[in-house]
Amino acid sequence: MDRIFEKTLLYDFYGELLTERQKEIYENVVFNDMSLSEAAEEYGISRQGVHDMIHRCDQALQNFEDKLHAVEQFETVKGTVLQMKEVLLQGDGNREKLLELLDSILNEI
Amino acid sequence: MDRIFEKTLLYDFYGELLTERQKEIYENVVFNDMSLSEAAEEYGISRQGVHDMIHRCDQALQNFEDKLHAVEQFETVKGTVLQMKEVLLQGDGNREKLLELLDSILNEI
Repeated sequence: MDRIFEKTLLYDFYGELLTERQKEIYENVVFNDMSLSEAAEEYGISRQGVHDMIHRCDQALQNFEDKLHAVEQFETVKGTVLQMKEVLLQGDGNREKLLELLDSILNEI
Repeated sequence: MDRIFEKTLLYDFYGELLTERQKEIYENVVFNDMSLSEAAEEYGISRQGVHDMIHRCDQALQNFEDKLHAVEQFETVKGTVLQMKEVLLQGDGNREKLLELLDSILNEI
């Protein structure tokens, strides 16, 4: 998975578990292209301090995923839903296949 | 929602974020009907200590849900999937309705 896309998903799911300050700095540096030097000046900490905080946030977000697997589950359900859409749009009326896919979602969530 | 069912869902989603000790005591008291007195003896803490720990775990689990809404999302997706199953089992071949429901899942997750 693309690194920034992966970070976006992890942040979408678990970002709310970070502190307000962590969220603000993380968003600015990771998603809004603020440089470490700019962030250091903006938040009154060292460049290394910003770097370490981003690293700790990445670790915390990955740790939540390792324990809860919400992103993984989301990817699986999304894949199945897209597969169902394809079946429906092909219009082959494969009802058994659709029911099977629905059950796989129920087993997943 | 039934209280114990709600606790089960919250614990299923977020239990891994508790410590091993919290998990063990919580499972025994809340799901395995161990009494506070039994837990107090088993884990070498006061009865009040067990009570307070269970309360703090409940608060922590609810706090994760308030921030991440994974249980709420699960309920919504599950409801939509069951609705789709009903449409399919009725066999009325309503493709538009099914596509609409699939899109509502994609919007939810």
